[in-house]
Amino acid sequence: MPLSNISVQTRVAATTSNLGPGFDTLGIALKLYNRTRLTPNSTRRFRIVSPLHPARTDTATAMVQNAADCFFRHTRRRPFGCDVFLEGDVPIARGLGSSVTVRLGVIAGLDALCNTRVIPKRLLELLTALEHHPDNAAPAVFGGFTVAGMVDASVRCISVRVSPRARFVALMPRFEISTPMARKLIPVRFTKADTIHNLNRAALISAAFASNDLAALPGLFEDRIHQPYRQQLIPQLSRVIQAGVAAGALGGWLSGSGSTIICLTLRNAKSVGAAMLHELPEAEIRILSAENHPYRVTRHPI
Amino acid sequence: MPLSNISVQTRVAATTSNLGPGFDTLGIALKLYNRTRLTPNSTRRFRIVSPLHPARTDTATAMVQNAADCFFRHTRRRPFGCDVFLEGDVPIARGLGSSVTVRLGVIAGLDALCNTRVIPKRLLELLTALEHHPDNAAPAVFGGFTVAGMVDASVRCISVRVSPRARFVALMPRFEISTPMARKLIPVRFTKADTIHNLNRAALISAAFASNDLAALPGLFEDRIHQPYRQQLIPQLSRVIQAGVAAGALGGWLSGSGSTIICLTLRNAKSVGAAMLHELPEAEIRILSAENHPYRVTRHPI
Repeated sequence: MPLSNISVQTRVAATTSNLGPGFDTLGIALKLYNRTRLTPNSTRRFRIVSPLHPARTDTATAMVQNAADCFFRHTRRRPFGCDVFLEGDVPIARGLGSSVTVRLGVIAGLDALCNTRVIPKRLLELLTALEHHPDNAAPAVFGGFTVAGMVDASVRCISVRVSPRARFVALMPRFEISTPMARKLIPVRFTKADTIHNLNRAALISAAFASNDLAALPGLFEDRIHQPYRQQLIPQLSRVIQAGVAAGALGGWLSGSGSTIICLTLRNAKSVGAAMLHELPEAEIRILSAENHPYRVTRHPI
Repeated sequence: MPLSNISVQTRVAATTSNLGPGFDTLGIALKLYNRTRLTPNSTRRFRIVSPLHPARTDTATAMVQNAADCFFRHTRRRPFGCDVFLEGDVPIARGLGSSVTVRLGVIAGLDALCNTRVIPKRLLELLTALEHHPDNAAPAVFGGFTVAGMVDASVRCISVRVSPRARFVALMPRFEISTPMARKLIPVRFTKADTIHNLNRAALISAAFASNDLAALPGLFEDRIHQPYRQQLIPQLSRVIQAGVAAGALGGWLSGSGSTIICLTLRNAKSVGAAMLHELPEAEIRILSAENHPYRVTRHPI
């Protein structure tokens, strides 16, 4: 049984994944958060009492219940229900890992309520099973810049700190992009040249972040295996990135499967944002830093 | 005109490239060397007076002259000739970068003779033009573990130090493999799954070396874009690697396009070598450390 006289709140950062060539592999946690508060109730159901988006409460309820079922199955604890309060600033269906903020919020919250001490690597494996790939879950769990993948049925993740000088200028369009639909656009085969192009740049980006050599990044975010195909969902993509680079950014990418576009810059973040917005005005600009810490759980007496 | 009263000797390390999934991208310099000594002569030709392999002097002479021509073209110096003494322990056509040891030996030697101070990045670009890819040239120039690629017609390279605890157990078969032939075996297209598999592991390997987290390496060297196709040239490849891993290695790979096979281990290097040799006995075992320093040029009065 859970501790009965407390509720727990889990703060999880937004995440940007792919970073251009690092498809299903690279990610960074950003200082933009959702919070999930769980209060055990007397039922066996999870019930969203304060939704992020009232119109999508059904989808969110299914996601929350699913994450909870996954936790109870893994820990073999007797299931119980919770009232769920969701709040925060991570927009949904914009390629910023909002689903991970909710799933991790539920699983880490239940872990705290049940005192089960699931290790972070296992948390990441549970999330990867729910998300189908670890690239958003990894930075949400560990913070910083992450390289993650499934190796022999277990998840592998290396996380490194990102310089606080790095500014992530996020252009969040008003329109959403469905991840499953965006994944269907990617071809089933790639040429040798495109494969090596991406492999090469994904490895260079990893080494650049891991050795904190951000000056090595210009030119490395150019992707050939997903962005060219997803451009049809967001035709302004190349122009927005080019405008950001012209204004001083090191480079830019489609965040996850979009619709958010991010430029990384060490200077002139406001001008970079303005230049990006000029190419796609129906959007909001947020200037963010990397979140180098893991998700955070706090306990609250009821 | 060159300095007339000295000869220069350049010591260049052997290099292992690809490291499994990091095709045309990853490399490591090893403590096994060739030395190239240049003594200006009164002709305009390069003449090998002490060859590495007497039977291949014609090929070597062409390679040396080609590298010299490249240097003179780049620096716009008036060409002159040299007597060339080659010596060292890097075997040829075994996937250990012997061609780079000679080409870099010539170019860096001429740079010292002419006092032209070509910067290392430019040296790497000249070598990449001669070699067609930078994965052996990068560690030979910079030392350590390198991630390298061509980005917008200029070479990009990130180099990091490799722990002296890492032992590279090199099994060098008696037979040679021709790189151009080994490259022809690679298909022109890859599936999405194989592409992401390799991209993912190349990025994880880069992050593991760059953050000196060698314990993260097991399982990561498994390749799907060149080794499966080159296995026909060296059918024992998988068995040799498996034997090394069973004896305690973190993993292994075909070095360059072979024929050398390398296992990386933090312990029991001799047992790893014995296990590898048991699967392919017509070979020599060398237990090497990474060379973390660049190539070295010394001046000698004649």
